[in-house]
Amino acid sequence: MTTIADTTPAPSLERLVERRIPGRALEAPFYADDDVFDLDISAIFTRHWLFVASTAEIPEPGDYLTIDIGPYPILVIRDDDGDVRALHNVCRHRGSRVLSESSGSTGNLVCGYHQWTYATDGRLLHAGQQAADFDKTCYALKTVHCRVVGGLIFICLAADPPSDFDDVASRTLPYLAPHQLHRTKVAAQLDTVEDANWKLVMENNRECYHCEAGHPELMYTFFPTYGYAEDEIPPRLMPAHARYLQAQADLESACTERGMPYEEIEEIAGRPSAFRIQREPLDGAGESYTLDGSAACRKLLGDLDITRLGRLSLHHQPNSWFHFLADHAVTSMAIPLGPERTLVRTTWLVHEDAVEGRDYDADNLTAVWRRTNEQDAELVVRAQSGVKSPVYEPGPYAPNEYQVDSFCTWYIDETRKYLRS
Amino acid sequence: MTTIADTTPAPSLERLVERRIPGRALEAPFYADDDVFDLDISAIFTRHWLFVASTAEIPEPGDYLTIDIGPYPILVIRDDDGDVRALHNVCRHRGSRVLSESSGSTGNLVCGYHQWTYATDGRLLHAGQQAADFDKTCYALKTVHCRVVGGLIFICLAADPPSDFDDVASRTLPYLAPHQLHRTKVAAQLDTVEDANWKLVMENNRECYHCEAGHPELMYTFFPTYGYAEDEIPPRLMPAHARYLQAQADLESACTERGMPYEEIEEIAGRPSAFRIQREPLDGAGESYTLDGSAACRKLLGDLDITRLGRLSLHHQPNSWFHFLADHAVTSMAIPLGPERTLVRTTWLVHEDAVEGRDYDADNLTAVWRRTNEQDAELVVRAQSGVKSPVYEPGPYAPNEYQVDSFCTWYIDETRKYLRS
Amino acid sequence: MTTIADTTPAPSLERLVERRIPGRALEAPFYADDDVFDLDISAIFTRHWLFVASTAEIPEPGDYLTIDIGPYPILVIRDDDGDVRALHNVCRHRGSRVLSESSGSTGNLVCGYHQWTYATDGRLLHAGQQAADFDKTCYALKTVHCRVVGGLIFICLAADPPSDFDDVASRTLPYLAPHQLHRTKVAAQLDTVEDANWKLVMENNRECYHCEAGHPELMYTFFPTYGYAEDEIPPRLMPAHARYLQAQADLESACTERGMPYEEIEEIAGRPSAFRIQREPLDGAGESYTLDGSAACRKLLGDLDITRLGRLSLHHQPNSWFHFLADHAVTSMAIPLGPERTLVRTTWLVHEDAVEGRDYDADNLTAVWRRTNEQDAELVVRAQSGVKSPVYEPGPYAPNEYQVDSFCTWYIDETRKYLRS
Repeated sequence: MTTIADTTPAPSLERLVERRIPGRALEAPFYADDDVFDLDISAIFTRHWLFVASTAEIPEPGDYLTIDIGPYPILVIRDDDGDVRALHNVCRHRGSRVLSESSGSTGNLVCGYHQWTYATDGRLLHAGQQAADFDKTCYALKTVHCRVVGGLIFICLAADPPSDFDDVASRTLPYLAPHQLHRTKVAAQLDTVEDANWKLVMENNRECYHCEAGHPELMYTFFPTYGYAEDEIPPRLMPAHARYLQAQADLESACTERGMPYEEIEEIAGRPSAFRIQREPLDGAGESYTLDGSAACRKLLGDLDITRLGRLSLHHQPNSWFHFLADHAVTSMAIPLGPERTLVRTTWLVHEDAVEGRDYDADNLTAVWRRTNEQDAELVVRAQSGVKSPVYEPGPYAPNEYQVDSFCTWYIDETRKYLRS
Repeated sequence: MTTIADTTPAPSLERLVERRIPGRALEAPFYADDDVFDLDISAIFTRHWLFVASTAEIPEPGDYLTIDIGPYPILVIRDDDGDVRALHNVCRHRGSRVLSESSGSTGNLVCGYHQWTYATDGRLLHAGQQAADFDKTCYALKTVHCRVVGGLIFICLAADPPSDFDDVASRTLPYLAPHQLHRTKVAAQLDTVEDANWKLVMENNRECYHCEAGHPELMYTFFPTYGYAEDEIPPRLMPAHARYLQAQADLESACTERGMPYEEIEEIAGRPSAFRIQREPLDGAGESYTLDGSAACRKLLGDLDITRLGRLSLHHQPNSWFHFLADHAVTSMAIPLGPERTLVRTTWLVHEDAVEGRDYDADNLTAVWRRTNEQDAELVVRAQSGVKSPVYEPGPYAPNEYQVDSFCTWYIDETRKYLRS
Repeated sequence: MTTIADTTPAPSLERLVERRIPGRALEAPFYADDDVFDLDISAIFTRHWLFVASTAEIPEPGDYLTIDIGPYPILVIRDDDGDVRALHNVCRHRGSRVLSESSGSTGNLVCGYHQWTYATDGRLLHAGQQAADFDKTCYALKTVHCRVVGGLIFICLAADPPSDFDDVASRTLPYLAPHQLHRTKVAAQLDTVEDANWKLVMENNRECYHCEAGHPELMYTFFPTYGYAEDEIPPRLMPAHARYLQAQADLESACTERGMPYEEIEEIAGRPSAFRIQREPLDGAGESYTLDGSAACRKLLGDLDITRLGRLSLHHQPNSWFHFLADHAVTSMAIPLGPERTLVRTTWLVHEDAVEGRDYDADNLTAVWRRTNEQDAELVVRAQSGVKSPVYEPGPYAPNEYQVDSFCTWYIDETRKYLRS
């Protein structure tokens, strides 16, 4: 993006990171520059805990999925003991991808090239026609740190992962536990490749300033007062605000009755494993992300005995967001594919005993977020195509975009630490 | 294109520009190198006046079109007073493209992301949910210099545009005025993306050495003696030369009778806003670019009372060429999309009262240049694929390629000035 | 692939080349880095003899084919005297590709842009409308070194080609001669673009460690003991080994009887024009690459009087491999198109008098290698996608991959010489 022939040389990565102005969007190179993309992989995606899947995606021993984190091909597998493990999907012989399917089920891991055969824990079991001095123990698949929290699988590519993840796990688990994700199944999964930088995808996810005009379907269940400070709610929205207050009171009492936490924890900057969690009411029937707010699945998650539980929303930096409802859960993650290409994967989970056609209709279950994803994809592409203009200057965030600001602050903090290390 | 590992290092941009040999084509890096492409954007496309559209493309207040000049998304709009304005199509909030359609009609300019709303002159009228100290006057859309000459819209991205454009305007206007482009409408528009550097597109446009073999349809109305010095016309072409002399005499007397200038002005190098204009006769019926040379539209442009007016041809550096005939006009521009990709937009204009099917047939009107464009696209791709060879050495221009040489000289002069500034 | 922002800077090309460990695969940058790709073009493809076609592809005077070697467009033509010549396919005027078709037949070489006309030896015969002092003798097409060995056309882009090619020619010709390629015709040709670096394509070709699992069709005629040291053949393969010994004895006596050499010459490293040639028996009927090993063409090559001649296999560094059988020949070459894209062209040749439908069935003739090529393409893409992982470390070659090791050694030797020159 920088004009090499220009009289002002392109700023260094260090300079770009140091001069970011809080309260404002990032400068253009952060969204399109090749060097920044490499920085993002090194400073963010290979050093932080990343959500990559839920356990429902690999329910049985031998089930696996593969995913590329930047240039790293990764394999997530449930081993023979039922534990979830992550391995580098790179054969120790000549570097071939061991498994090439996006998901499947296998006994051992047999590389498709020369049939080197590994156990599900990575140990090399067999390599054909080797010399006598060949030592199998030197050629195990390299391992990746892996943690499961309430059915959500997180991996970390760093040798020494951020230790504050224990705190995240212990504080979010009480919120997640009632939804019992380990007893869910995948009802639908949608991959969208968006022609935009991953940070624009995340920034878009971290605010609802664009929702009223941009997401008509989602707004059936998001209160229209969302994002307003209480003392700035316009008169036209006072009826909605009254509905909100009632719904919030109902939610609090339902949670209190069941010993379920609902309070906001917001630590989305200032720590490596930054996150936000809160249970909030939904508008309309208040049960689920549908056009009228009523539940999309008759069989509720876990042992829940009430449908009107609003949405438990979890954000985790750098790349994921989640909604847990009484009747289903939706997991979302963004994986950078290039400076201007990002994979967004959305997965809908329902109770493992729910039967499609009887308990839920997949089209109805997925309609709102499917449409919302399409709308978001258009918005971030529009943003991507504008920020590359040399006249673009980062503008000010509105008060209801404070979480976007926090995301940028977190990102800048973490890259700064990396560049200084 | 340069081999980094080669023992001879790639020449610097300065060296490449300085060592160009007049009378010869440019060296290979000028046609494929990323750094040269950035140089072209900086030295040429952001510093010179560029034709971008005719007023007929945005006839009513609120009508707009969007176009990208290199990395700059631009918006050209007719404001409420009927004036044409150009703005950077980049929202002052988070850099999103404000309008995403290629053309349309609108009241205010509402950014599709968070609904920031601008007036047609760029002033920010409204931004929702802002803090009390938010100052709208600080966030107007950035403006772009814009001039209309005889219905042709030129923009300049520089802070301080070349001042010699006034001279171009005053000297070309007498030629253009009789065609009254402000009373035309778009009969057809064709966008072609050519897989070649924009300079190869322009060089191809600046000579007719390739026409006899390359453009059989165009040659029905171009005299076959085109490009020959008078004393070198081969005997086989003497009958054509006699036709030419008669047509030229007829044209001169028709113009003189009507007070219309026809003389060549050729200043295609040696100044920033370099141009060439001349009215010349056409072969065949001598009226228009059709297969037999007869008019393609029964309703003539402006108040013209004669069909046999030949072609008024205007070239403007760096990126446009035009033909004005009695019955229609054709505007053409080349916009670089990448080192090896160029958009060529051709627009056919007819009198605003002409009715398709009655006064003109769009297929007949566009046939010759549509076919000529296709042929040119093939030729420049063939050139692009050859000049990248490391053995390519710029060869000598033939005498009838002198305008190509002038184009290269102009380009080298302007980049040299930029690099020295 | 290298992370610019990483704390460890990317190694230089020199360092990468110097630190290669014999017996192990190459490091990741060799397979995806842009600078290494440029190095490969400079050090390997513009300095060595390259197989580009067989004479059967241009049987008559005026027949030509065009091929791009990296950034070099090349033209291979049979001139009016029946000799094969190679020229740079770049017009001396403005660098246009002279001929744009992939193959054809022509009298003179007429550039499609401005009709500059060259003889088949490259001399400029005509350029229209030139000034009086234009000297045609200065603008001949540039020539490329060209050699024909037993019907195989090799070119070299270097000014001073490796002189050891004479030795290759004189030692391989006795093996090739009986197949009389100059009396063959093309029965089929297949171009496959593989999304992998050219070296992964070649490495894959230089071992059969992957054959048993990867190429079931090919294994009908390759002995399953292929690649085993004699004293390590497993008991289950002893019957196959007995078949092999018998077939080898039969082959040797057939060759001896006819004065045909069959012994291995293996000089695949340690010299610029490195090669390997050997005649070996085939399993099954032992005649040809078909599913049962029986001949695919009733008309044998040259004046051969025996069908069971096994396969004469020739490897030539950097980019070709060949199989000559009694009934047909298969030529294969790999041409780099980019760091991660390679063209593989496979050509099947049969006796010039063989008639399709009577003497051979093209589907049957090509089935085994067509399927084998598809399988290889999948394998090298799988390798390409894995070696780019930052955790990839070159692993050890198995004993039966020694020819891959030799290929890498040859490659490293030649690039090292280039970088030191």
